[in-house]
Amino acid sequence: MAVTFRLARRGDVPALVAMLADDPLGAARETADMAPYLAAFDAIVTSPAQHLIVGEQAGRIVATCQLTLLPGLSRQGATRALVEAVRVAADLRSSGVGALLMAEAEARARAAGAVLIQLTTDKSRHRAHAFYDRLGYEQSHLGYKKAL
Amino acid sequence: MAVTFRLARRGDVPALVAMLADDPLGAARETADMAPYLAAFDAIVTSPAQHLIVGEQAGRIVATCQLTLLPGLSRQGATRALVEAVRVAADLRSSGVGALLMAEAEARARAAGAVLIQLTTDKSRHRAHAFYDRLGYEQSHLGYKKAL
Repeated sequence: MAVTFRLARRGDVPALVAMLADDPLGAARETADMAPYLAAFDAIVTSPAQHLIVGEQAGRIVATCQLTLLPGLSRQGATRALVEAVRVAADLRSSGVGALLMAEAEARARAAGAVLIQLTTDKSRHRAHAFYDRLGYEQSHLGYKKAL
Repeated sequence: MAVTFRLARRGDVPALVAMLADDPLGAARETADMAPYLAAFDAIVTSPAQHLIVGEQAGRIVATCQLTLLPGLSRQGATRALVEAVRVAADLRSSGVGALLMAEAEARARAAGAVLIQLTTDKSRHRAHAFYDRLGYEQSHLGYKKAL
């Protein structure tokens, strides 16, 4: 059944949070209280640099990612795009939906003038590494994080 | 001599571009024409999510990085901060200026409510890896890029 992509609406937030939590790493990080997610949603959608993308199939949210457009001086003033929080519904993994989701993110990035798209993925996510390799992403960088 | 940190001004752009280009990877990527950089600067400073930080010593720009605040649903609606385009003047590397620059970025991220700060660095930048390790960053992720 076809998946259609669009920007997220406020009413999608519970489904998006459920998808973020249905994940080996996400399970320990999310909560049932929707208030912080709704506040974050409002911050995301008021920024013109943000595209919170959802994939919908027969009225059900089955995929999501967050695309951020980053203006920058480097690379002759290039705009780059950052992808965060990529998720596909558990029963649809390895079905091609993830590739369609990334194609949607890349199309939106290109339309906004980005010349480069980038993302990081946890070192433990071996299936994700193979997925991005297949889609033509180059594993050129190391990703560092620090809690504040 | 003390380094003071502030947001970049339009007049700093040529010095910032010179610093981006004075780098093994940056040298091949930058140009002498300032027009694309000035356009990118204008896009950066009109976004409230962007902090283009410069370090100044005796009237000279000696360090820079770009901090972006990223609202997001993940991690209970956490705001995270992304650092890009970190540079220290060649004659001041290993002098402690880089650590001051990162402390400035972290303080700005924390003041804006970010709970996590993240960055990627090219796999070939071995001195940068040791630098971020020393500052308490965890090399937990792999960084992927794709040209659009």
